[in-house]
This record gives sequence, structure tokens and C-alpha cells, in this order.
Amino acid sequence: MIRIGVIGYGYWGPNLVRNFSQLNDCVVKTVADTRPGRLEALHKIYPSIAVTADYKTVLSDAEIDAVVIAVPVFLHFPVAKEALEKGKHVLIEKPMTTSVAQAEELIALAEKKRRTLMVDHTFVYTGVVQKIKSVIASGEIGDLNYFDSTRINLGLFQHDINVLWDLAPHDISILNFLTGEKPVSVSATGISHTGNGIENIAYLTLHYSNNFIAHFHCSWTSPVKIRKILIGGSRKMIVYDDVEPTEKIKIYDTGYSMRTDEDKHKLLVDYRTGDIYIPKTEQREALLGVAGDFVSAIRENRQTLAGGTAGLEVVRVLEAAGRSLREKGKEITL
Amino acid sequence: MIRIGVIGYGYWGPNLVRNFSQLNDCVVKTVADTRPGRLEALHKIYPSIAVTADYKTVLSDAEIDAVVIAVPVFLHFPVAKEALEKGKHVLIEKPMTTSVAQAEELIALAEKKRRTLMVDHTFVYTGVVQKIKSVIASGEIGDLNYFDSTRINLGLFQHDINVLWDLAPHDISILNFLTGEKPVSVSATGISHTGNGIENIAYLTLHYSNNFIAHFHCSWTSPVKIRKILIGGSRKMIVYDDVEPTEKIKIYDTGYSMRTDEDKHKLLVDYRTGDIYIPKTEQREALLGVAGDFVSAIRENRQTLAGGTAGLEVVRVLEAAGRSLREKGKEITL
Amino acid sequence: MIRIGVIGYGYWGPNLVRNFSQLNDCVVKTVADTRPGRLEALHKIYPSIAVTADYKTVLSDAEIDAVVIAVPVFLHFPVAKEALEKGKHVLIEKPMTTSVAQAEELIALAEKKRRTLMVDHTFVYTGVVQKIKSVIASGEIGDLNYFDSTRINLGLFQHDINVLWDLAPHDISILNFLTGEKPVSVSATGISHTGNGIENIAYLTLHYSNNFIAHFHCSWTSPVKIRKILIGGSRKMIVYDDVEPTEKIKIYDTGYSMRTDEDKHKLLVDYRTGDIYIPKTEQREALLGVAGDFVSAIRENRQTLAGGTAGLEVVRVLEAAGRSLREKGKEITL
Amino acid sequence: MIRIGVIGYGYWGPNLVRNFSQLNDCVVKTVADTRPGRLEALHKIYPSIAVTADYKTVLSDAEIDAVVIAVPVFLHFPVAKEALEKGKHVLIEKPMTTSVAQAEELIALAEKKRRTLMVDHTFVYTGVVQKIKSVIASGEIGDLNYFDSTRINLGLFQHDINVLWDLAPHDISILNFLTGEKPVSVSATGISHTGNGIENIAYLTLHYSNNFIAHFHCSWTSPVKIRKILIGGSRKMIVYDDVEPTEKIKIYDTGYSMRTDEDKHKLLVDYRTGDIYIPKTEQREALLGVAGDFVSAIRENRQTLAGGTAGLEVVRVLEAAGRSLREKGKEITL
Repeated sequence: MIRIGVIGYGYWGPNLVRNFSQLNDCVVKTVADTRPGRLEALHKIYPSIAVTADYKTVLSDAEIDAVVIAVPVFLHFPVAKEALEKGKHVLIEKPMTTSVAQAEELIALAEKKRRTLMVDHTFVYTGVVQKIKSVIASGEIGDLNYFDSTRINLGLFQHDINVLWDLAPHDISILNFLTGEKPVSVSATGISHTGNGIENIAYLTLHYSNNFIAHFHCSWTSPVKIRKILIGGSRKMIVYDDVEPTEKIKIYDTGYSMRTDEDKHKLLVDYRTGDIYIPKTEQREALLGVAGDFVSAIRENRQTLAGGTAGLEVVRVLEAAGRSLREKGKEITL
Repeated sequence: MIRIGVIGYGYWGPNLVRNFSQLNDCVVKTVADTRPGRLEALHKIYPSIAVTADYKTVLSDAEIDAVVIAVPVFLHFPVAKEALEKGKHVLIEKPMTTSVAQAEELIALAEKKRRTLMVDHTFVYTGVVQKIKSVIASGEIGDLNYFDSTRINLGLFQHDINVLWDLAPHDISILNFLTGEKPVSVSATGISHTGNGIENIAYLTLHYSNNFIAHFHCSWTSPVKIRKILIGGSRKMIVYDDVEPTEKIKIYDTGYSMRTDEDKHKLLVDYRTGDIYIPKTEQREALLGVAGDFVSAIRENRQTLAGGTAGLEVVRVLEAAGRSLREKGKEITL
Repeated sequence: MIRIGVIGYGYWGPNLVRNFSQLNDCVVKTVADTRPGRLEALHKIYPSIAVTADYKTVLSDAEIDAVVIAVPVFLHFPVAKEALEKGKHVLIEKPMTTSVAQAEELIALAEKKRRTLMVDHTFVYTGVVQKIKSVIASGEIGDLNYFDSTRINLGLFQHDINVLWDLAPHDISILNFLTGEKPVSVSATGISHTGNGIENIAYLTLHYSNNFIAHFHCSWTSPVKIRKILIGGSRKMIVYDDVEPTEKIKIYDTGYSMRTDEDKHKLLVDYRTGDIYIPKTEQREALLGVAGDFVSAIRENRQTLAGGTAGLEVVRVLEAAGRSLREKGKEITL
Repeated sequence: MIRIGVIGYGYWGPNLVRNFSQLNDCVVKTVADTRPGRLEALHKIYPSIAVTADYKTVLSDAEIDAVVIAVPVFLHFPVAKEALEKGKHVLIEKPMTTSVAQAEELIALAEKKRRTLMVDHTFVYTGVVQKIKSVIASGEIGDLNYFDSTRINLGLFQHDINVLWDLAPHDISILNFLTGEKPVSVSATGISHTGNGIENIAYLTLHYSNNFIAHFHCSWTSPVKIRKILIGGSRKMIVYDDVEPTEKIKIYDTGYSMRTDEDKHKLLVDYRTGDIYIPKTEQREALLGVAGDFVSAIRENRQTLAGGTAGLEVVRVLEAAGRSLREKGKEITL
């Protein structure tokens, strides 16, 4: 039986508790939050879970094997560090930390303590992203040429992190999971309409050493909710529209190929339009997959799909993007 | 009666001839093209229009008042210059020229020769863009916060110009027409998948001195055709989806406003969601508006909606974007 | 405090218990179901609610003021009758009964016993239908000309009732709520693909004495889920698409008007196309409205929006539709 | 060289002339229309085509081999009869005639005169319908269970024919082309909002002797244009949405199958949801296919895809539908 402590019971907390509660051989023992109202809300639904205003109560409880950290981003590092030092396995909400240095320190500490360190990159566990992964792995798409993501809606303006730190971890973690490639540099532009210098609209480009490019558009300021990722390959292309209730992935057997005109030494591009295919995808709840992978990894002493390194790679891009933003698009080498 | 000569009868040529032919007190006298097949195609439909392989025949015809230049982009400048020197009024396809210096030279020459110089910024003449202009002018939207355009599809790879020079003139000319503001700098990123260094995917950000940002995503490499512009204001927001057959504009009475929490000196953002409104727009052919404005401006000796300066401002952005692209996003001041 | 007993804890049961539990001055005391598994499922979430396999326990509990009947349709009548006789207030799932005679008997009994009798016409309590009602009431739409509903998807084939009895109560109750008009006759056609004579696809037309028509298309056999209602008026028209996540209602300021050509005594129809308007609608859970109306009506001794007569009018149409179905569309007078 | 005369140059006339003009070994010699304005409009574009106000000029021209009849529906029969008697091959716009008796008379006359008689069932020649035909023929869909068509928009109210005669020929001809089955009876309901007794909204059910049903919803009174056909089979289902610009057909590998529970002698229905497939379809102009088939059939003395019998079968349904409409849905045996 793995005993879980949850630290932070805000927006995402009820989902975490509900999913961990569904697992076999796993129990949520204690939830910590400084807001009495949140703990009362929890108690009504889960009278058997202990509550506390002090997260240290959770960390010093020897019966608790693992903690889930769902506090504001700037607290991810200190709380996770303390938890690892107390010998707990740790699952952190995304983004993992506010700096590369912090992420690296947590990874080193987890390794030293031989504890599981995981980041909640929920999308990686969706049936849709899993399906895209397998389609790419099959070679059906060919070589990947580009990844373009738009994730915009009218969203809660955060006070401590800009829109890239808030929304882009979803897309960057999906991208990294799908390709396994590392970008060599980033460029980012954006704007803060609030006057507090925290961007509410931002654009981010990832440059790679091979023939690939990735771009992200994030905004809290769009009345239209768009969640669309285009993945272009040399043979086929995938459109992933997360706003669609059921037909989330479309695979276009449409492409172009290049050849050189022997005579004129001129590049020619040939087009081909073909059928479109909408594969069925599993509709399971992704967060249950996250919880299950975390608990199984602890038990079996193995890696998860989204370990500390995955979290670090996201933070590495975001940190560089912040620097590029301040210099209006200047390329920052990673 | 205004007599028109058309130089270049490629993809856009038939549309130009058809629309100028519909105007009163205007006649297309001669069409020039070096390809005999194109001239034959024209002759079948318009047996009364003279044809020639040599555009100089058009320019030296004293009866011809005005020429429409629809040749490859790199020829816009020399042909337009020669035409103005021969005293013709000139309408050039977009983009006006391949450099700011060329555009400025044409503007000066047109002024000196007292001739009308116009650029075919077709979208500015659509019922939709005219409607958006009037909605913004009415103050309904409030202050403009952002302009975000996506114009992607599986398109013909050009050999002489990159995707920004090919597609972005549409969006930049719309933006400039709507706001009248000038950007202070640009950042652009992109990729060439063909190995010839000509970008087929590009992203462009325009920075402004006020609280406004514009971004453009252009691609020849997307099997899905997207033509979507988001225009965010302080009070309402407009979504212009040009792929929609009829409901092209949606106005969202949805927004957010900012205030400072007196107690905590903290910024608070309030949301408001409201009705959506789809105004009826005129469905007239935009190119007929271009042709009519050109001919009337000649006759009445007045400005058009898209004169040399409008063309120049688009080229100014594109030229700087090219420099930024080569430096992977570096901000280029205009 | 109103004490509720729920009889039947199948597909809809958890929603009923959850919503009644949210009301003030109301408590769900007991739930009856013959399936032990269902009661166990309930107990896990609501340990304080009593359970029983015998619905008569609920009916003979003097502390219980009102019962909610969510058993198979053919049991609605006997259980409701027994409940009313025991002096309980009664809320029945739709369709109210399997015959007009049964519905009339329940109405008479409720009147005699001075008890509230209500049918769960959930859609009548949605923000969308309430909005449509108020738009029609404002006169904005003009006189109503037609109501056309399509409600199809790949659905569970029922063994005891055909697709009209299963799905059409939603649409007929919406229609009756909106117009208050009674049809004079019905025609229905359909097919049973299972060989058991229970139609899985059916079409139903309602004829009225005034210039109005209603039509319903119901199917359990469509892989595409469509939930679309068109409401045409003499001035404007409403499209209600329940599959749309947010923009469920569109009001078209588009219509036609008729006049007679004086000269030729010929009818002329003039068209007008105009703006489209998407009003914001409340997103509250409709079933909470049902529960609240039921409890308040009991307490205040007043009518609900969906009393026995509303339930009867739906059953009256369905009963006649069954007769028409057997005669392949023959008009059945009501 | 086949010489064509076109009788009637209204809405559809320019399309007919343009397509016949594109064929090899075929020429449009003369066009007849009683309206001078229409003939002038033609002359501007096609100065080489002769014009006449009197269609008898066309019929008595010995050089003309074939005539296309595009006059008001009530004139189809007399003009076609006269043309056949003069030895012309005949292509009639849909619907072929206003009665079964007339259609049968024309078929007999064409046979006697050994002339080609064809009806312009344009949709049968679209790439989309051809694709659906081949998908059904391949057995991929299984046995056909239903055909459901909605064809509604804000349309021109006809003065001589109701909305079924105007719009349903498209759908009935598609249905007959796809299945080759004959209905045994029809039921129809509808309404006339104009007071002239000509229905502007109508619903039509076709009953078959096998396990199949067809339904049509036609309206001139809908501000929303819907052109959607659902074709359900025992294995897969097709949705054909003609309003979609490119993805017109979707094939759902989703279905249900029936089995009997051995124990309980109860029918069980199993569901299966699967992938969706959007086949590429040819985008050619269908009317060019009609024209080509007509001219080739004349030359090769062979049948067309849409001969007199196809036209008759459509009229047979429409005539019976009219009778059923007058009796509010009564089944009319064919």
C-alpha cells in the first residue's frame, strides 16, 4: 500500500485526490492546505482523509511514502526539496521549478536519495498523445518537419508567472515526448497588457540542428478557445484539435516532395492530396494514468514517462524564453 | 474613357482583365505576356483585346493611360519605373517591390510625374475588412491590444521570394489599413525545408510603441487551410475567419478589465463573457473595388485606399523581417 | 425540511441524488433499488443515505414527504399511483406513463390527494431553453412558423419502448413549453431494424390548426450525434444546436415576407438577410432547477413548470404516434 | 459533330451552355428564350451562338441533333414531346415531368423514335456520389439500413411546384442511383406558409419491402443551409455533407450488431466505435459529366446514367407524395 500526501488543494487538487483514490494499493492519507475553506470542501466528500494547514505535518509523517505538490509555482522547489530530503517520492505539478538550477538540484537530490521524482505532464498520458506517438513511431508520417501549437483562451491572469510558464509546459512536454529531440536555441516575443511586465500573450520559436522547427502561441486574452497542434512530416501530417469533442486527430495523407529539375538546376515541389483518416483514440482520464505511473514506478523502482529530466527540459526552454522575451526575440542558445 | 494595359497574364491576370472590363468608361486595350499559350487563352475569351509578347509595346502606346503590372515580383520595380517614366498611371501587384529603396524611388517618381501609383492590396477592398474597419472606428472594440493572423495552406513554393513575401502582404496591408499605426521593430523566425534557403514557414512579430502587438504565421506547408485573424480590443474582440463561407466575422462582447486591489496593491483582472454578434457583410468582389478605385482616382486626381505609401509600409516590414529571419528572431528596428 | 425518497438508482439516479442533496432544507433520506450493486455504489459516496431493495419501504415511511420515480417506464404508473395514494408528492422521470389513460388517472389522483405531481422534463430547465422562451415571448421572432428537431446518435436500444418514447419527450416538452399550443393530429413513420417491431428510427409530424408545423427525427442508429432544433418565425429564426459546447443558440435576423402583386394577383416573396446574434445563456445544471422547482412547489403549494398536464400532453402525442407508426404515417387526430 | 439547341436560358442556362461548349465534337448552335434580356446576356459572352425567341425555330432546324430543355417544369412535357416528334435527342431538366403519365409517354415516344432521352440528375455525376456508389458496391458498408436527407435553405419560393418537386429530385435521384431499389409506398407531410397551398416545408418517407427506409426533409424557409445525407449500413455508415468545402464524405467504422441472448430470449445490441475515414473525391464539375454522357450516348447509341426511366421513378415518388401531403401523411402505395 502506497500512502500519499497531497500538498495544496486548489483548482487541480480535487482531481488529484479523486484519481489517486481510484488506484488499487494506494490511499490518500493526508491533504495540506493553508485555506480552511478548501479543507472543509475536501472533508465533505472524503471524510476519511486527514487534513492539515501545515504541509510539514505531511512531510514528517513516516507513514506517508509519497507526496504530490500542487502549490504555487514558486514554492515547487522548496517544498519538493524538503520532501525529498525527508525521503518522500515526489510528484510535482508543471512547471517543475522556476529555474534550471532548481530542477537540476532536485534531480540530483532524488538520485542521491533513490526516490522517484516525477512531473505532472498530464497530456503525455492522454489517449490522443499516445496515439500520435505511435503513429509517428510507425514511420507513417515520415521525418518530422514542424510542430505548431496554439493554446489560447480567456484565462486567469497569473500574478507570478507569465503565460508561457502557465500554458506552454503542456505543449513543450507533448513535443518533447513525441520527438525526443532537444532544441539548440529559442526566440520569443510577447506583450504584457497589464503593465506589470508579466506577458499575457507570447510567441515562442524553438530552433533545432536538424530540419525541424517548433512554434508556440499562448494567450490568456482570447475569447475564442483554440487548442490546436499541427505536426508536419515528410509524408503525412497530423492535426490535433483538442477542442473537438471526439474527432481530435486528423491524419492527412497530403504532402509535397521535392526534386531538382535536371535541366534547369531548379527546385521543383510536387503536391499530393489524398485521403484523411481520423483514428479512434482512448478516452480514459489522463490524470489517472499519471497517478498510476507514479505509484507503479515507486513500487517497481522504474522510470516514469515524465521524470525529473522531462520536467527540466521544459524549464530549460521556459527560462531561455524569458531571456529572449526581454530582448524582443533575440536568439538564446540552450 | 481610361485605357488599360495589363502586363503579365498569369494566375491573377484573368481576374484583373475581367474586373477592369466590367467598369464603365474603362477598357482593357492590350495584354502583354511572353508566353504564347497565355495570350491564346485570353484571346478565346476576349477577342477584342490586343495581345503582345513585348510589354514595351504597351508602354509606348500613347493611347494607354494606365498599366497593371502582374509580373514576377523581382520585375515589379523595373517595369513600374519604366511605365511611370512613360507617363502611365500604375497599379502593381503585391508586394510592391523587393526593397524599401525601390518603393521609395517609385513613390518619388510618381509624385514628380503626377501619376497615380497604387498597389493591389485586394483584401482592403473586401466587405469584411471594410466592416471591421467601421466597427473599430465606432469605438465598439475599445483600444486595440493585439492582431494575430494565421495564413497557412498547402501552397505553391515560390522560387524567388519566401513565404512572408508571398502571403504576409495580405495581412500586413489589412493590419495597416485597420490601425494606421507604424511598428517600431520586428522579429521573425522560420525555416526552409527545401534547402534553398527560402523559408516556407515563417513567424513574424511586430512591436509597437504603444500597448499593441501583431503576429503573423505564414506557411506553404499545411494541408489544412487556415485564414484566421484575431483582433483583440480593450472592450470587445473580433475573430475574422476567411475560410467560413458566410459567417466570416464574429464580434465577442467578452473581455477583461484590470484594477488594483487597494488593500494588497495587487493587480486584479475581471472577466466578462457576453453575447456574440455576427454582422452581415457585403459579398462584392474585392478586386472590382480595387479596379474601380484605381480608375476613379486617375479620373478625379485623388488618392486611393492603397497608394504607394501603403505598399512601401508593407515592404518596409518584409525587408526587416528578412534580416531578422537570418538572425533567428533578432529585433530589427524600423 | 423536505425528505426525499428515490426509487430506482440506475443511469439517472446518481444525478438525481446529487442534485437533491445540494438543495437547502431538503434531504435524500432513502434510495430503493432491487440491484445490490447499485446500492453499494451509492453507499460509498453517500454513507448517510439509507438504502433498501423494496420500494414499499420508502412509500410506507411516514417521514418521507416526496418520492422521485426513476424506474423503467412501464412501472412509472403503478409506483406513482401507490405513492400518491400513500400521500407522497411525486416526481416521475419522462415519459410520465405509457398511456394517456394512466397519465389522466395520476393527475386526478394528485388533485384529489392535493399532492404535487411533476415530470422530469429536464430540458425545460436549461438556460438555453429558458433563453429561447424569453426571446419568443419578447416578440423578436414574430409568429412561429415551424419547429424542426433532430435528435440522433448511436444509442442504447431499449427493449420496452421505441425511439420516440425514449428520445422525443425531450423535444416535445421543449416545444410545448415554448409555444403552449396543442397539435390537432400527428403522423409518424419509422422502421425497426431489430425485427422486434420496436422502431429504432422514427419521424413524427405534428399538425396544428394554425399556420404552424412541428417535426421530430429520432434515431438510435446514427454514429454522428446531432441535437439540432430549428425554430422559424415570421421575423427571425433560431437554431439551437445542443452539440455545440458554448454557442448553442443562433438567432438569424433573416427572413422572408409575402405580398401580393397588385397587377398580377401573384404572390411575391421578399427575402432579407441580416446579422446573426448568439446570446449568452446560463450554464447552470438543469436538473438542479428541476429539483429546486419540485421542492419549492411542495413547500409553497404552487405549480411547477412541468406538472402532470405537461407530462400528459407528451404522452398524448406519443400514444397517437404509435398508432400512426403502425399505419405508416396515417394522420391520427388527437 | 453533335449540334445542340438550348431551350430556356434562365438560372441554369449559362451553366448548360458553358459545359456543352467545352465538349469536343459538340457545338451549341442556337439558344431560345422569350426574354430579350436573357438572349442579350448570352450574346455578349457567346457571339457565335444564334438566338431566337421562338423555341420552334430550334425544333425545326434540321441541323440540330439534340435539345436541352430548361423551361418551367409545366412546359417540360409539351416541349420534350414536340422535340422527340421532330426527331431530336432530348435532355430535360429535373424534375422530368409533372406526372407519371407524361413521363411514361415521353419514354415510349423516345423508344419509338429511337432517340436518347435523358434527365439532368446532376448530382449523380458528382465525384462525391460516384465515390459513395463505389464504396457501397465494395460491400464495405454492408446492407443498407437507411437513407436520410436534409436539404434546406432560404430559397426562392416557386409558384407552380412545391418544395418537394423543387428540391427532392436531387435526393431521390441520388438514392435511386445508389441503391437501385424501388419503394413500395410513400408518406408525406408539410405546410404552406404562403396560403397558396404550395408547401414550402415538406417531409417525405419512402417505405421499402426490405429492411430499409428513406426520409427527406426539404425547405425553402431555413436561414441555415443544410445539405446532409446519412446513409446507414449494417457495417459502416456514411455522412455526406455537401456544405463542407472539401471533406464532403465521412465513413464511420462504427456500428451495432444484434444477437439474441440464449438464456433470456432477449435481443441484445452490441456497439462498436472505430476510426473515421474521409476519402478524397474528384472535384470535377458534375454538369460537364451530364453533358458528356448525353453527347456520348447519342453518338454511341447507348444508355446514360440518368435516362427516362430514372426520371420517371423520381416523378412517381413525387406524384404519390403530393397525394399523401393532401391527406396529411396517409400511406400511398406505388
